[in-house]
Amino acid sequence: MEALLRQSRSMCPFLNKTSPATLRSLSTTTRHVSPGGGTMSNLQVLARRCPVMGKAMTVQSAKNSNNVLNGVFGGVRAYGGKAKIHTSRAQQADVAPNVLRRENNMPIHHAPKPTTSIQHETATAGPKPAAPKSATFDYEGFYNAELDKKHKDKSYRYFNNINRLAKEFPQAHMTARDERVTVWCSNDYLGMGRNPEVLKTMHETLDTYGSGAGGTRNISGHNQYAVALEATIARLHAQEAALVFSSCYVANDATLATLGSKLPNCVILSDSMNHASMIQGIRHSGAKKMVFKHNDLADLEAKLASLPPEVPKIIAWESVYSMCGSIGPIAEICDLADKYGAITFLDEVHAVGMYGPHGAGVAEHLDYEAHTAGQTKGTIMERIDIITGTLGKAYGCVGGYIAGSAKMVDTIRSLAPGFIFTTSLPPATMAGAKTAIEYQMEFQGDRRLQQLHTQSTKAALMEKDIPVMPNPSHIIPVLVGNAEVAKKASDLLLNDWGIYVQAINYPTVPVGEERLRFTPTPGHVEKYQKELVVALDAVWTQLGIKRTSDWAKQGGFLGVGTEVQGDIEPLWTDEQLGLGSQVERVGLKVLEEEKAMAMDEVDQRATAIAASA
Amino acid sequence: MEALLRQSRSMCPFLNKTSPATLRSLSTTTRHVSPGGGTMSNLQVLARRCPVMGKAMTVQSAKNSNNVLNGVFGGVRAYGGKAKIHTSRAQQADVAPNVLRRENNMPIHHAPKPTTSIQHETATAGPKPAAPKSATFDYEGFYNAELDKKHKDKSYRYFNNINRLAKEFPQAHMTARDERVTVWCSNDYLGMGRNPEVLKTMHETLDTYGSGAGGTRNISGHNQYAVALEATIARLHAQEAALVFSSCYVANDATLATLGSKLPNCVILSDSMNHASMIQGIRHSGAKKMVFKHNDLADLEAKLASLPPEVPKIIAWESVYSMCGSIGPIAEICDLADKYGAITFLDEVHAVGMYGPHGAGVAEHLDYEAHTAGQTKGTIMERIDIITGTLGKAYGCVGGYIAGSAKMVDTIRSLAPGFIFTTSLPPATMAGAKTAIEYQMEFQGDRRLQQLHTQSTKAALMEKDIPVMPNPSHIIPVLVGNAEVAKKASDLLLNDWGIYVQAINYPTVPVGEERLRFTPTPGHVEKYQKELVVALDAVWTQLGIKRTSDWAKQGGFLGVGTEVQGDIEPLWTDEQLGLGSQVERVGLKVLEEEKAMAMDEVDQRATAIAASA
Repeated sequence: MEALLRQSRSMCPFLNKTSPATLRSLSTTTRHVSPGGGTMSNLQVLARRCPVMGKAMTVQSAKNSNNVLNGVFGGVRAYGGKAKIHTSRAQQADVAPNVLRRENNMPIHHAPKPTTSIQHETATAGPKPAAPKSATFDYEGFYNAELDKKHKDKSYRYFNNINRLAKEFPQAHMTARDERVTVWCSNDYLGMGRNPEVLKTMHETLDTYGSGAGGTRNISGHNQYAVALEATIARLHAQEAALVFSSCYVANDATLATLGSKLPNCVILSDSMNHASMIQGIRHSGAKKMVFKHNDLADLEAKLASLPPEVPKIIAWESVYSMCGSIGPIAEICDLADKYGAITFLDEVHAVGMYGPHGAGVAEHLDYEAHTAGQTKGTIMERIDIITGTLGKAYGCVGGYIAGSAKMVDTIRSLAPGFIFTTSLPPATMAGAKTAIEYQMEFQGDRRLQQLHTQSTKAALMEKDIPVMPNPSHIIPVLVGNAEVAKKASDLLLNDWGIYVQAINYPTVPVGEERLRFTPTPGHVEKYQKELVVALDAVWTQLGIKRTSDWAKQGGFLGVGTEVQGDIEPLWTDEQLGLGSQVERVGLKVLEEEKAMAMDEVDQRATAIAASA
Repeated sequence: MEALLRQSRSMCPFLNKTSPATLRSLSTTTRHVSPGGGTMSNLQVLARRCPVMGKAMTVQSAKNSNNVLNGVFGGVRAYGGKAKIHTSRAQQADVAPNVLRRENNMPIHHAPKPTTSIQHETATAGPKPAAPKSATFDYEGFYNAELDKKHKDKSYRYFNNINRLAKEFPQAHMTARDERVTVWCSNDYLGMGRNPEVLKTMHETLDTYGSGAGGTRNISGHNQYAVALEATIARLHAQEAALVFSSCYVANDATLATLGSKLPNCVILSDSMNHASMIQGIRHSGAKKMVFKHNDLADLEAKLASLPPEVPKIIAWESVYSMCGSIGPIAEICDLADKYGAITFLDEVHAVGMYGPHGAGVAEHLDYEAHTAGQTKGTIMERIDIITGTLGKAYGCVGGYIAGSAKMVDTIRSLAPGFIFTTSLPPATMAGAKTAIEYQMEFQGDRRLQQLHTQSTKAALMEKDIPVMPNPSHIIPVLVGNAEVAKKASDLLLNDWGIYVQAINYPTVPVGEERLRFTPTPGHVEKYQKELVVALDAVWTQLGIKRTSDWAKQGGFLGVGTEVQGDIEPLWTDEQLGLGSQVERVGLKVLEEEKAMAMDEVDQRATAIAASA
């Protein structure tokens, strides 16, 4: 026994630090009723908390109970073969109204769940552990406390009931059908949710193939629309293959988690402003994560250089960061990836449909002329190893995807639980998404008009000293800097002005950087823009929110009120927008004419489609 | 220096074990080119792998490069304020055809990604680390190796192109439109994917509200259909509230991950046959996990009893296990949860729509009469803390959900990234799913007919000595026991007999337990059942697959060829199926008449709906 204690002491920090007298005392006093009904020494109680002993005791305890209890009751029947199969059929309940005598006067968040008041088979037969006598955990109290925290830090979210009307885009109705609002924060950036070609495809597919896929991709959920959609996505991004998921959240999560866990000793380098789906995927992978400063190539390179060359590395970042509108340095990151033997994982979720001559995203946009001419070889887009995108924003449907090499895609298809074990998207959804992508591959009008509306809205807001956060993309973040005020501004805009824009608060943006985030669409024509400027100006005055000049006095914040604010040029050049060099850009006037022409083109096309339908 | 070494030794097992001579040798030899271009001692190379020193060296290295490189190039602009905003606009590419001179003759899986052949800004200016000279990781080689493994162990999946025809349910066409097959493995258990009421709702919603939600639930993606669907689900399960997710994979994953990580010291007790989505959710939570043997209450109780009473515990299990058709002991697990202060997390994915007078699942079915009478108080279903279900199987659409107390649901709504940061399901999908649930709450015909078809198919197969794995549910698993043979059987059935049933191989089931899994629907009328029995009988002979009697000679396996095979009664009783006690069940004859009557009822209803549409 002395030898055993000595040996144990050499291995166990607790035993090593505790005197023999204390150990003796702990092993003789009892203060706890054991699950088996007997008493337990304080030493045993402590041992249950030990990672080594606790496990051993559990196994022992399970063995002991199995000896006594195993196979006695209905739920456990050992069949004759090597493996067991278990079934359990509870007695049919016989609930007469008079046995329903439970009373429940406690407030709902403290009410324990009722126990079944009907007769049914007891859970276990034979000697059973007695119920523990100490207090058990208060789950409803825990939920309350978590919700209280959200209320206190003003991060509790109130959902607005917004019903976007396809035929009156960008208008929606609230709970009441006649209560109209203009939606200024939808990610249906191009209005594809009401596109006649998309809807026509969906109606036809619904009628022919029904409302759901009926299974996972492996078990009856794979069909011609999945095949065609993935081929279209691969073609869009000039990659060998693509794979569709329930959402791009799932695509990012499943792909990073799978690669990060399977690649031996993988390190994932992640931009500090990456989306929650990538952060989760990296966490779920268990791989080593290195966060580099947002769009900071020097920081990224230092981190890459610190890693052994032979170690697999994934650089994960976004093309358009949706909450501030900044754009990632794609070509430069590809260079670093080549230099250090990393693969590139680029989230184009907020860019697909919106940039590039075919709407393939920012990577395509960077080689605008080459892609316009149909040349993909040697372009930046071709260099990306894994592109992820969504079918639920600019393409107006739902779902997400990855695109890349055939072997990479096949590996994810074969290994990612988030892809394998879930029902496929419905055929009508996949058919609609394919139509949307192809429509946007052929037609530039929507995204050009969206950019023109973005430019004119930004200009008009800045004219009024409204603090637009500068960026080269289609996102218009307007700085508020306080969660409560942002919520109030959003409420006032909705209730007094019929303008719906959700306040963006923590955890979506850091505390102190709260904002309103406007996303113009081709449908946000001049009338709506003017309404918005008037309303925002009034609300800013009403709530006393800081204007650009106020931020400037403080030295600027998040680009607002700094020298760069006027300098940042949009990614879409005038030439790319079809504003020919012969056109003098005199203020907004000429722009408006160009826009009117572009809008006509969109409308004509829609009318033509509707007529042919 | 000596003192430092002594101190380091006391802390570092490596230094402690290594002689001064070896340390000296390691610190003077060089074998590696550092990322900065210089040489590195072998000691430094080793130190980079140390969890303590490696980190310190990375920080040091990053600091050094930042001093030199920070803020030099376009991607990094420090604005005047407290926070930084970053934008980057790459030069517009100028890709002339003659610069696209890259050649790529290597086989695709070895081909490194091309570098951009256009001129663009260099990634970093100023002194930069040289590219490492040693070999970098071979990613395509890794993908190949992973895929090879799948091919070798026969777990590589080949997807069949199955296009389920709504108007010819349960028929589908393959790639060619005239190549018809009968689908025998869809999870559209009730044929709701072609239900006229569901399709009518979806068409109308598509026209009025478009193809997509356009945002997350918080940002413009919340609408009347989300509100109504969640209210319907809560009502279905007699719970206070419900929350809809992209899929039930996401619902299970997000809910378990969130609760398991937020509840302090949470322990999750998980049935050994739980679905991948629950396994992932538990893993992602980081909570302690205890796996109890499938449906083994004694094992579960031993594990519960081994835990301190005050520790929060979640018991997670399923009502119908989809690959073997066994049913979890719901009431008994609720008893154990009460006794040990655990909450119950019940996955009813394969049961909703299928069991209970309103299709709420097995928990409802256990109190059949009470729920028929509209009494939910004191029932087993009311005792479940968290019920999860799908909109993509018996309800024929896509999506998943949780239902439970208002506070629990609000907590998940407020905290789960997989809910918060993803685009909402489209309005038409939510509207269709709500219609499907309400249809099945009112109408028993589909699920009764499904059960009758299950019973007659099982009986007919067992008559032919085909090894049906016994269970009380609607699943018909037929044992094969070998991955290659299961795939061959599936291929033969498809090619020679026009019957589509996917082989279920590892990792969906353990190696050696491979099977075919048939799921009859109300549409699988006698004609299809007869075809199936003839085909299976022929394929079993052709491939020499073991029959029930063969398994019996070996003592049985997974319930096949054991005494219990004939004893297990279906959960649906004759009475619940409307087979009145006055009807003598003489073989299949009477059953067929009852089925014909039930089928008539379904058809009449469908015709009536179609007429009114």
